[in-house]
Amino acid sequence: MFELHGRLAADTVSVIDWPLCRVLLMDDATYPWLILVPRREAVELHDIEAADRAVLVEEIARASAVLKAETAADKVNVAALGNVVPQLHIHVIARFTSDPAWPRPVWGAAPARPYGSADRKGMVERLRRVLG
Amino acid sequence: MFELHGRLAADTVSVIDWPLCRVLLMDDATYPWLILVPRREAVELHDIEAADRAVLVEEIARASAVLKAETAADKVNVAALGNVVPQLHIHVIARFTSDPAWPRPVWGAAPARPYGSADRKGMVERLRRVLG
Repeated sequence: MFELHGRLAADTVSVIDWPLCRVLLMDDATYPWLILVPRREAVELHDIEAADRAVLVEEIARASAVLKAETAADKVNVAALGNVVPQLHIHVIARFTSDPAWPRPVWGAAPARPYGSADRKGMVERLRRVLG
Repeated sequence: MFELHGRLAADTVSVIDWPLCRVLLMDDATYPWLILVPRREAVELHDIEAADRAVLVEEIARASAVLKAETAADKVNVAALGNVVPQLHIHVIARFTSDPAWPRPVWGAAPARPYGSADRKGMVERLRRVLG
């Protein structure tokens, strides 16, 4: 009965479903930015079962490692904030010393710059190859 | 051979050592703010062993649950950023709809407001009781 929060649905494109999480691409070409959403009803990390958390942390680590290797990022930022969207979701963001927010966190630093439609399609296909 | 990064040492007070992480209190009375530092050499979450990650996510969940219950917070923010301090560390921050950064992330929102010495001592003692 999993339903993605409307705000996440509006701001992202679906990439793939992993065993626990739906993997989304944030529609912001400024940063290669994934969002992992456990298909569970939860607000906080401590709301899900320990067995799910064990899967979650491995899915986060996999997303982090793949995104860093694939984009040659300088750093990966991982965060579960949820102050605006209460559905538990984890940001996994490739950061570059040359990006407009560096070294600050990305939120609020620069307005989202949606992908052009060909670029968005290309990015999703590339991510499906490396995350599939 | 674990050594805490100098910047973390300067900005925090040590609370307790858990099986994997050193638990620190950020010296900023604006938010109840813990930092968990795995006693490993690592920059990214995907740098540590999977067995350590399984422990890490449970330590994060415990810190999150205890901090939320103890402070009656509205939300907990969890983040591993590391753009400034490269030693892997995880922020666990109690957030309130009344806090000065809400609903934005805390970084850069308000200058750190160090605890008075009696308040700092009281907070550390309280945290040791609930996290011990």
